Amino acid sequence: MMRRRNLLQLIGAGGAGLLAKRANAQHEHHAAPVGTGEPRGRRHAQGYMPVRTLNGWTLPYELKGGVKEFHLVAEEIEHEFAPGTRAKCWGYNGTTPGPTIEAVEGDRVRLFVTNRLPEATSVHWHGIDLPQGYDGVGGLTQAHIKPGETYVYEFTLRQHGTHMYHPHVDEMTQMAFGMMGMFIIHPHDGEAVRIDRDYCFLLHNWALHPGTYRPDPSVMQDFDLWTFNSKVFPAIDPLVMAMGERIRIRVGNLSMWNHPIHLHSNPFWVTGSDGGRWPQALWRREATEIVGVGQVRDLEFVPTEPGDWALHCHMAHHTMNAMGHGIPNNVGVDQRGVAREIKQLLPGYMPMGKSGMSEHAMHVEHGMMEGPDNTLPMMTGQGPYGGIEMGGMFTVLKVREGLAPGDFNDPGAYVVDESRRARRVSSDPDFGSPHRRSPYANNAPNASPAESDDHAQHHHHGSEPQ
Amino acid sequence: MMRRRNLLQLIGAGGAGLLAKRANAQHEHHAAPVGTGEPRGRRHAQGYMPVRTLNGWTLPYELKGGVKEFHLVAEEIEHEFAPGTRAKCWGYNGTTPGPTIEAVEGDRVRLFVTNRLPEATSVHWHGIDLPQGYDGVGGLTQAHIKPGETYVYEFTLRQHGTHMYHPHVDEMTQMAFGMMGMFIIHPHDGEAVRIDRDYCFLLHNWALHPGTYRPDPSVMQDFDLWTFNSKVFPAIDPLVMAMGERIRIRVGNLSMWNHPIHLHSNPFWVTGSDGGRWPQALWRREATEIVGVGQVRDLEFVPTEPGDWALHCHMAHHTMNAMGHGIPNNVGVDQRGVAREIKQLLPGYMPMGKSGMSEHAMHVEHGMMEGPDNTLPMMTGQGPYGGIEMGGMFTVLKVREGLAPGDFNDPGAYVVDESRRARRVSSDPDFGSPHRRSPYANNAPNASPAESDDHAQHHHHGSEPQ
Amino acid sequence: MMRRRNLLQLIGAGGAGLLAKRANAQHEHHAAPVGTGEPRGRRHAQGYMPVRTLNGWTLPYELKGGVKEFHLVAEEIEHEFAPGTRAKCWGYNGTTPGPTIEAVEGDRVRLFVTNRLPEATSVHWHGIDLPQGYDGVGGLTQAHIKPGETYVYEFTLRQHGTHMYHPHVDEMTQMAFGMMGMFIIHPHDGEAVRIDRDYCFLLHNWALHPGTYRPDPSVMQDFDLWTFNSKVFPAIDPLVMAMGERIRIRVGNLSMWNHPIHLHSNPFWVTGSDGGRWPQALWRREATEIVGVGQVRDLEFVPTEPGDWALHCHMAHHTMNAMGHGIPNNVGVDQRGVAREIKQLLPGYMPMGKSGMSEHAMHVEHGMMEGPDNTLPMMTGQGPYGGIEMGGMFTVLKVREGLAPGDFNDPGAYVVDESRRARRVSSDPDFGSPHRRSPYANNAPNASPAESDDHAQHHHHGSEPQ
Repeated sequence: MMRRRNLLQLIGAGGAGLLAKRANAQHEHHAAPVGTGEPRGRRHAQGYMPVRTLNGWTLPYELKGGVKEFHLVAEEIEHEFAPGTRAKCWGYNGTTPGPTIEAVEGDRVRLFVTNRLPEATSVHWHGIDLPQGYDGVGGLTQAHIKPGETYVYEFTLRQHGTHMYHPHVDEMTQMAFGMMGMFIIHPHDGEAVRIDRDYCFLLHNWALHPGTYRPDPSVMQDFDLWTFNSKVFPAIDPLVMAMGERIRIRVGNLSMWNHPIHLHSNPFWVTGSDGGRWPQALWRREATEIVGVGQVRDLEFVPTEPGDWALHCHMAHHTMNAMGHGIPNNVGVDQRGVAREIKQLLPGYMPMGKSGMSEHAMHVEHGMMEGPDNTLPMMTGQGPYGGIEMGGMFTVLKVREGLAPGDFNDPGAYVVDESRRARRVSSDPDFGSPHRRSPYANNAPNASPAESDDHAQHHHHGSEPQ
Repeated sequence: MMRRRNLLQLIGAGGAGLLAKRANAQHEHHAAPVGTGEPRGRRHAQGYMPVRTLNGWTLPYELKGGVKEFHLVAEEIEHEFAPGTRAKCWGYNGTTPGPTIEAVEGDRVRLFVTNRLPEATSVHWHGIDLPQGYDGVGGLTQAHIKPGETYVYEFTLRQHGTHMYHPHVDEMTQMAFGMMGMFIIHPHDGEAVRIDRDYCFLLHNWALHPGTYRPDPSVMQDFDLWTFNSKVFPAIDPLVMAMGERIRIRVGNLSMWNHPIHLHSNPFWVTGSDGGRWPQALWRREATEIVGVGQVRDLEFVPTEPGDWALHCHMAHHTMNAMGHGIPNNVGVDQRGVAREIKQLLPGYMPMGKSGMSEHAMHVEHGMMEGPDNTLPMMTGQGPYGGIEMGGMFTVLKVREGLAPGDFNDPGAYVVDESRRARRVSSDPDFGSPHRRSPYANNAPNASPAESDDHAQHHHHGSEPQ
Repeated sequence: MMRRRNLLQLIGAGGAGLLAKRANAQHEHHAAPVGTGEPRGRRHAQGYMPVRTLNGWTLPYELKGGVKEFHLVAEEIEHEFAPGTRAKCWGYNGTTPGPTIEAVEGDRVRLFVTNRLPEATSVHWHGIDLPQGYDGVGGLTQAHIKPGETYVYEFTLRQHGTHMYHPHVDEMTQMAFGMMGMFIIHPHDGEAVRIDRDYCFLLHNWALHPGTYRPDPSVMQDFDLWTFNSKVFPAIDPLVMAMGERIRIRVGNLSMWNHPIHLHSNPFWVTGSDGGRWPQALWRREATEIVGVGQVRDLEFVPTEPGDWALHCHMAHHTMNAMGHGIPNNVGVDQRGVAREIKQLLPGYMPMGKSGMSEHAMHVEHGMMEGPDNTLPMMTGQGPYGGIEMGGMFTVLKVREGLAPGDFNDPGAYVVDESRRARRVSSDPDFGSPHRRSPYANNAPNASPAESDDHAQHHHHGSEPQ
């Protein structure tokens, strides 16, 4: 049974208890579009609430003569997608994504970029309005940064919102290898609406073919790994939050797919994009929002119930790890023995189970089936009630009562007693169902008009040529 | 000539004539964002106008102590996509999609789920705000429902709008096999805007490779069949409606593609999502709306003209049936005789025509070309003026004058005389066109300024290196 | 070094100087959602500012008894995507896309369509609200237009906005071959907001496999060329504009992909769709907007800085030309000699460089590497500071001070001195970076609280099983 050790426990929790006397302790059990009062948690000296980068970090800066100096180092790295899958990637300052850059509207920033890659690069500050010479398009607005060189960019931030950075030289390859990061600009005059926890992450995809150790940048669509901040479930950080808090999740996309991001149960509002926070009249309530490639979406909400709630891309294959695609279709076929033989010839062979895919998760857990080297189980993760059978772009919101402000420690699994969850009432497949298809399908015509209508009674299965 | 027999004729029509004295008989010939007055058609005892599920049905319920009890049975089924193509699929209560669940905001619902599949399952109530224990994520919020077991979910509906249900155990496989359904919650206090007809359907895709009988869940993008409620054109129900009525079409997507849904001519407004009806200031006029995977979009309009109007996904390949993809490119090549030889070696071989694809429709209709078993013609359908040459995600709105409220009978093809439609004026390709490319291209410079301008006169064909 | 010759220089510039006394010469250095005053540039006699079709043209018309008569000729053409790649395509009046149709709300239009293709066709006026008989769906609303025949459509325009036209007979094939065009309807009472320059183009994709001369319509996703108005960078026209002007870019999509269109730096507002201009309360500020298939999006803005600014699809592979996809992954592998041998067996073979893709651009420019016939370099284009290394859906906004109204001449490259652009400060890879990952990573804990916070200090690289 594999579970993820939350490294945040070792380093986080900084602000816990600091703001024990909360100005607004009321819990908002309904989803409200705005919050009021003071934000919870520890703020930066400039007054803003720092963002929390999933599985990531914020780049420190040095203040020199009123200018914030940052330093990005582009370099090859060894990256782990989840325990069991590593690859040679390219990133910034040792990680993919690179560290999040955080600053405030009105700040002047100076950004050094050192190139330790084997080829030229540049940095484009995606979504940021600036003088053309600092736009970072190799050849068009600046010379390429050659291996070994350091370049400097400098501009004043005249906007706020969620932005990104990435190369604009050999862009296809360098992004496919993991070069990207977020650039958060906090509003100069504080948030128009209180935000208590502010998460951010980037969507990406990787053609890390099973058994290989370097992503393939020439793949256009058929990717193996789909990631939040270059991690796959179950290695993606949970998003910890308290009832009553107002949450923002900033999602950026530098992949090759327009991903529909779905949050279970808790209704959210889409409140902004790379262009900054939208006027409140434009906020849109959604259960799923497409975050397009090169786009950012800010999602805001107040949790409605405590619990562990799934947050994921709704493309079913994007919540699978490698080998979910293009494997032989054996549902309905007994294949004992055969798979073993084929695997001697074809080491990567992993057929679909006779009764569906769940067999895989079980077999891999129990050592009954081996995949190629450097490859995760296709479906994995363990919850309090059994296997979660997920991978890729999937993580969990952990909503709890009474969490201290700024406490980001993983509170463990959410468990309720049987009276408060879906439960077994029978192990007889014909329970309550003398009529094969629905217990009510046949007697519905006799139901009282209050419970039924003509339309509900028909049940047709197809159509034929006229 | 193949046409679809409208089974609704056998069972529908219930409300026809019941409300013969319509409160609001005015026809709105322009598209108006709101309707007023009483809705037309037969309402449920709780006051709502039931939805009409294309090629589907509404699940009856039983009222027990004030709780609405529903029963879903997950099971393997034999499904017909259109006459000529069947497959072993998985669904609920005998169909894919499963029956539509309808209830009212404020209702308490109890949902029994019996598993007759060969592997475990669960049901996630997508977009519905509820206590965590009923969210349906196997392992995370509940134990898996094993084969033969029945589980119960129970919660109160605290919202209204268009929602969905689907498994959250071995999700990729179970959805690829057809397990999905809609969950409509009507507003407690009635619709803010009158709705006369309320249609709903789900988008899906199927890797049913020509000649096979079971969808392949491992395919990520290269699907063979693209469906509205698990049917392909011409087996998809038409959407029948009268001039002057206000129509809502609720479209949900549980496929692997963000589909742009296009309605011909009649402008519509996007008025809501899984999050319910949006404030009117957010309604957006469109001709095509992307319905993302895991999303729902409510489209509303008043028809502007009588007629048969196409409603379809605008991806050209998604209005084709199987074999529209990856076949040899023979446009410009005479291939008589060759195809027959190749087909002896390769039974599925179907080359492109010498002059385009239309040859296919013709050949298949006339028996000149045979496809593999269990496979539809790639392009099909017959209209009053000839072949429609479509498939997949394509159906027709049938807008008529003077239809009785609640009359869903197919009124047949819409035919107008030649003075009211596009018509032949010449069979000479050079008609009106002494100048090869445009009759006006050469004399435009001499046209009066009122009819032309400098910009309109140039006509360039490319560019060259400087 | 290959640069594009701007053919507009030969024919454009008509209106330059005509409106030398500009009513509103103020430059708006901030992005403002509305403009006021008189538009700049030469207007049509009916008062509208004509659109500028990238690499395209506007179809002249003849006024006959108060009706505007247009004539479209569907025919096979020889099309050049960029110097070096030509193909047999299908288009209208000699080009793909066909000419832009422009008219005014309230106009009555009569459109002749002559078919010179080898198979039947029709024209659907996408997004336009009209009587059903003129909707252009072959078989459903009209008979097919057979080779040699001319059909006529006639209707009154009861809306304004950005629309499209394309066939609705053998639609998949005919669109894949290039049959499409724009249909712009100007508002009857003038623009609610001043527009000074009004650009339009269509997104498309082509399966023109390297070494072949005819697009393959059976390809569903794996395209070779991604185009703005059937051209690839660097053959796409630049969008020339002056500081202080209000710009509209109308983007339509008849491809097989929902493209996220990104504009560098200059924030824009999405102001309308096929449904016409939205109420101002719906305008949304973005840096990237998804233009769905079958959709149109109007983007409006006032440039914020002079310069050459990239406008492109943000899918990295869509700014590459053919062969960016599915080539062997050799990063980290020395392959001298091997490629030459393989190419003798496999003429299309082009391996990835040892250090990334940039080697390609260089090799192709210097003649060190040969691709198959009729194939563009994968990455190309030359800027003032070196290679731009792009292709496909990429072009440049050329924003300048003091351009005359209606002057569309390419002003050449934008060059600033080194003090105003990203510049080299060191060629030592260890500059400012004694600590490998970030110069501040280690001393951040000692930084003053004003410059740092707890969260910024941690730096973790992954996670492990618990």
